[in-house]
Amino acid sequence: MLAIRKGSATKGVAMYEIDEPKELPEGWALVEVWKASICGTDVHIYQWNEWAQKRMNPPVTIGHEFVGKVLKVNGGLGKVHEGDIVSAESHVVCHTCRECRRNMYHACENTKIIGVHMDGAFAEYIAIPEENLVKLPPSVPLEAGSVLEPFGNAVHTVQSADVRGKKVVVTGVGPIGVMAIPVAKALGATLVIATDLSPYRLQLASNVGADVTINVKEKDPVRVVNDLGGADVVLEMSGSQSALNQGLDMIVPGGEMCILGLPDNNVSLDIANNVVSKGITIHGITGRRLWETWDLGLALVSSGKVDLTKVITHQFDFKDYQKGFDAMMSGNSGKVVLNIK
Amino acid sequence: MLAIRKGSATKGVAMYEIDEPKELPEGWALVEVWKASICGTDVHIYQWNEWAQKRMNPPVTIGHEFVGKVLKVNGGLGKVHEGDIVSAESHVVCHTCRECRRNMYHACENTKIIGVHMDGAFAEYIAIPEENLVKLPPSVPLEAGSVLEPFGNAVHTVQSADVRGKKVVVTGVGPIGVMAIPVAKALGATLVIATDLSPYRLQLASNVGADVTINVKEKDPVRVVNDLGGADVVLEMSGSQSALNQGLDMIVPGGEMCILGLPDNNVSLDIANNVVSKGITIHGITGRRLWETWDLGLALVSSGKVDLTKVITHQFDFKDYQKGFDAMMSGNSGKVVLNIK
Amino acid sequence: MLAIRKGSATKGVAMYEIDEPKELPEGWALVEVWKASICGTDVHIYQWNEWAQKRMNPPVTIGHEFVGKVLKVNGGLGKVHEGDIVSAESHVVCHTCRECRRNMYHACENTKIIGVHMDGAFAEYIAIPEENLVKLPPSVPLEAGSVLEPFGNAVHTVQSADVRGKKVVVTGVGPIGVMAIPVAKALGATLVIATDLSPYRLQLASNVGADVTINVKEKDPVRVVNDLGGADVVLEMSGSQSALNQGLDMIVPGGEMCILGLPDNNVSLDIANNVVSKGITIHGITGRRLWETWDLGLALVSSGKVDLTKVITHQFDFKDYQKGFDAMMSGNSGKVVLNIK
Amino acid sequence: MLAIRKGSATKGVAMYEIDEPKELPEGWALVEVWKASICGTDVHIYQWNEWAQKRMNPPVTIGHEFVGKVLKVNGGLGKVHEGDIVSAESHVVCHTCRECRRNMYHACENTKIIGVHMDGAFAEYIAIPEENLVKLPPSVPLEAGSVLEPFGNAVHTVQSADVRGKKVVVTGVGPIGVMAIPVAKALGATLVIATDLSPYRLQLASNVGADVTINVKEKDPVRVVNDLGGADVVLEMSGSQSALNQGLDMIVPGGEMCILGLPDNNVSLDIANNVVSKGITIHGITGRRLWETWDLGLALVSSGKVDLTKVITHQFDFKDYQKGFDAMMSGNSGKVVLNIK
Repeated sequence: MLAIRKGSATKGVAMYEIDEPKELPEGWALVEVWKASICGTDVHIYQWNEWAQKRMNPPVTIGHEFVGKVLKVNGGLGKVHEGDIVSAESHVVCHTCRECRRNMYHACENTKIIGVHMDGAFAEYIAIPEENLVKLPPSVPLEAGSVLEPFGNAVHTVQSADVRGKKVVVTGVGPIGVMAIPVAKALGATLVIATDLSPYRLQLASNVGADVTINVKEKDPVRVVNDLGGADVVLEMSGSQSALNQGLDMIVPGGEMCILGLPDNNVSLDIANNVVSKGITIHGITGRRLWETWDLGLALVSSGKVDLTKVITHQFDFKDYQKGFDAMMSGNSGKVVLNIK
Repeated sequence: MLAIRKGSATKGVAMYEIDEPKELPEGWALVEVWKASICGTDVHIYQWNEWAQKRMNPPVTIGHEFVGKVLKVNGGLGKVHEGDIVSAESHVVCHTCRECRRNMYHACENTKIIGVHMDGAFAEYIAIPEENLVKLPPSVPLEAGSVLEPFGNAVHTVQSADVRGKKVVVTGVGPIGVMAIPVAKALGATLVIATDLSPYRLQLASNVGADVTINVKEKDPVRVVNDLGGADVVLEMSGSQSALNQGLDMIVPGGEMCILGLPDNNVSLDIANNVVSKGITIHGITGRRLWETWDLGLALVSSGKVDLTKVITHQFDFKDYQKGFDAMMSGNSGKVVLNIK
Repeated sequence: MLAIRKGSATKGVAMYEIDEPKELPEGWALVEVWKASICGTDVHIYQWNEWAQKRMNPPVTIGHEFVGKVLKVNGGLGKVHEGDIVSAESHVVCHTCRECRRNMYHACENTKIIGVHMDGAFAEYIAIPEENLVKLPPSVPLEAGSVLEPFGNAVHTVQSADVRGKKVVVTGVGPIGVMAIPVAKALGATLVIATDLSPYRLQLASNVGADVTINVKEKDPVRVVNDLGGADVVLEMSGSQSALNQGLDMIVPGGEMCILGLPDNNVSLDIANNVVSKGITIHGITGRRLWETWDLGLALVSSGKVDLTKVITHQFDFKDYQKGFDAMMSGNSGKVVLNIK
Repeated sequence: MLAIRKGSATKGVAMYEIDEPKELPEGWALVEVWKASICGTDVHIYQWNEWAQKRMNPPVTIGHEFVGKVLKVNGGLGKVHEGDIVSAESHVVCHTCRECRRNMYHACENTKIIGVHMDGAFAEYIAIPEENLVKLPPSVPLEAGSVLEPFGNAVHTVQSADVRGKKVVVTGVGPIGVMAIPVAKALGATLVIATDLSPYRLQLASNVGADVTINVKEKDPVRVVNDLGGADVVLEMSGSQSALNQGLDMIVPGGEMCILGLPDNNVSLDIANNVVSKGITIHGITGRRLWETWDLGLALVSSGKVDLTKVITHQFDFKDYQKGFDAMMSGNSGKVVLNIK
């Protein structure tokens, strides 16, 4: 079968002809991959940055956001069956660590990630633990199915705060930030403001429902937001130190900040004035809650309350994967999908 | 009457003979002060640091932690009556800002503080809004009554996290950190660890129930706590950058940090690894919740679950107030109480 | 001025010419009433049932749902000013009981109700504590402003459960049940089902967004809801014993029920199978949270997420109040508004 | 090996000599049982009441509360290993139903119970899914280990409410009600009141820390509790209709009731006055939260905050099991333990 792999410890990825998964361990399933979407993580692997070098041991088939059809299940829990259309949680958890015992699987201390620690989904077939599969209702468009995993990050971020009747600012509207916008509105936010440096991304934010967009190269976002009454909730998606500080500056006393963006380095924050004196709550967000986030995300998409096709800006044939990576690296894209079958 | 006042915009405070409060505005009460306790804020005012210079306009009678007897009420809500023994919330709130409307009075945007913005409690009599008074049950010792206000900070910090069955680390055991220890134990913490630089304070922490104390000059607190299984909850009471970082280092994935300590400057934090990837929640803590914190604190003290007399290490006659300030500034003290009547 | 009053302890109400409110106590405001809406409570007073007989001491001007303009404020908190367009919370709370101290003003033990315990809003002018007034943003239609108080009951009911991505059943779609439907959808419910006996009300439920309506005279609501996967959340608005039992029958394990409807008598429930074994949570709902419910409700209405004009089915001139009561008593109405100015 | 079994569909149980468990399915463990405790459910099985007749298909080895040593594990998650001292969760859950997916395993729709649906723990050896085992820290006394499962019911009940600084009433102090008392105190309750009909049980309640006991045959519990200021939280452990109504009568507005007791029939409740108008929250409690309840319970016991040996009133040799059942059926017992090895 064809597979996009990190073949060696150098920059880039390539398509290879490799064997289909042969042995299916007890509790695993074999899935025919139909569509897969490129994550920022895949770009890090492509670029072979420090994060990737620390975690990967090539050769590995990459990719972890996909939709496909179940071909076979070896035992398992009975969550999915042959013929089901499925997407997948990319984190394989241990079930025994302190966090798993507290149902905080998203913070599992022994997580393995599909397409990083084991062969992934940029391939015609993938072998994967059945418990990680999620059966899709027929009302979920296939394209949407291929981006449910990163959508889960957006849902997890929004669901961690109380956005009901609130003014919500999304700082950084890359693909996950963009997806957080319709989620916030669907869960009751009455004003959603997006900030970014990129006119392309801000336009995309408007397309999916942002009420106000602010290009931080042109305007002081703190002033604009304060003129609108301040932010009740800030969703930090950029990993930028200035966005973190601006977010804390614009947040009202008693407000909430959810941080999903990963800063490259330590960040310097005014804890005294912006966190303690304002009585702010900060939520660090990682992964998706198993399975509350998936259930909520699927309910929003299958009911039509969130239309994920609007965030998919590019689709390419599987063999044109390089165009997909180029689109991702240009910064001028939402989600980029590869059509495998 | 006698009163300790900030007489002018220079270092120090002094005792003056001044008039008793004459006019009692509608809704205010007159209280005979029996005992008052010296806060770190009073020390800042004494030292006339930047914080104090920004907020005060001398001459002002200082002090805001006290117990006394109600002499008169002009109208008011009927919370207290003549002859009641009372303590007081030091923050006078506006009732109309966004935070007050959401019952987040502790984050009121227009707070006035007794002994800072208006004449305070280091005096034989104080005039104060009746709504700020809290009637004490007879089972509360008078000394304890004089430290209920800072005790409320400790209670507010602990009640903001879930400490039931948890390992709790208190970083910084000045007076409020010390008071947080018995509160955490009373609310279900099964192991409480205290860290500080001062042997005196660590001994006090042991006296009030800390299971483990760590002098951070002698041992690496992160290593010691991790050897004990990590911290489920960190209560940051020191305002120190290193304590903040150590606290985040020792906290387990999914854990909570409550920050009451006010750093002097911006602090540099590893948000990516210690907040986002671990899925931590951080609570900024300011003031006391009106009146949930007072109700919980009073229940703990009046039932005997928390013995506040153990944290009062010094008592002086009112006229020996300088000895009280000296004790506070030595670092070798818990709470210091002035006996006024 | 003209006022609709309960003149004596017999059935009916009548319009009288009475003096305008003369003295305005400290902290009270005088409001010119523009529109007022008839509540089920007003109908109980009209019919002079047991509930009304126990609480009222005629003569009293009735009515407590209204919108109007502030003419004068005597002191007060500064929440509203002359010329402001306002609606009002109908419960005047004591601020000192245990519930008020815990910010549960809606459960105040000493509540007084406007139009029941003191002269109300079916009059050209009303005197009312300023703290009970709520200033309306210009984007709130005046008709909507006159029904914000009962809308608050609907908002309070929905906000007490987690409806995000959930299947929500509203049992009983009188005016408040009907208003709960768009609130549930605005806060993230993905399927809203309405049950009632009245085709008129079920049609109204459809008009405001119910996805499914069930006439319980024609179909077994438990079977229909179970075929749709069961109810995650039931909002009980009917006060009917059979609706309570059906609601508990259709709710999934771990689900939530919010009860606003007041049964006339004791009700017989299968606590063992439907509450304990299913691990259900039941929330009794009374009044509105001060002021979180008002803030959330106003945000939903002023942002356009909820259109309250759709639930107002009848408007009459003030003098035609009898037609208004007749419409209410017919059962074939949503909210009924009297135009006073 | 020896085992106490329900041999046929008639009253009583008997000891049999049967084969040791032979085959150990993948993921199961073999445990040598050291001590086991008799549950009310075992008494129902003994008496062969309707509940038992509906669920059991004799012959089955009964018993599900035990402590023992792991002899062998076939695969599994790695939670326990050979030689570990363990107790066990009695509910075997499906992991795929809606409730399991939401981490509400205690409400799993497909639960199987050890000693009811499969051979249980009143035997020298038991085969059991490894995921159901819980390794005990050395500081847990063996007797305590044998009652951790029912203790979990008590912990789950208390942890479902906020008891911090609260007045808590336990209605019905059979073994689980008794165990709830020290849990409530350990988690911050400042006054715990126990009600029952049995002087023996009320004495036991006092022994484990109840501040007040009320024999409802002698005094009106509603009056006594109201004289003490009313109940903030009621833990209903009796399954009695009168206790449910008294509990709702004595609860303060905004209070909470947790119901673990299973009434035999429908109960008649004053929903209007006691649930809706008071704004009460009611929690139905079933089983134990996996694994938060176990973690909290173990923390309380292993830290010494709760001493479970005080609730064990009788211990018998395994062969004297009839004496154990007699003690349970007398009503004059706390927990009754059988010493198997």
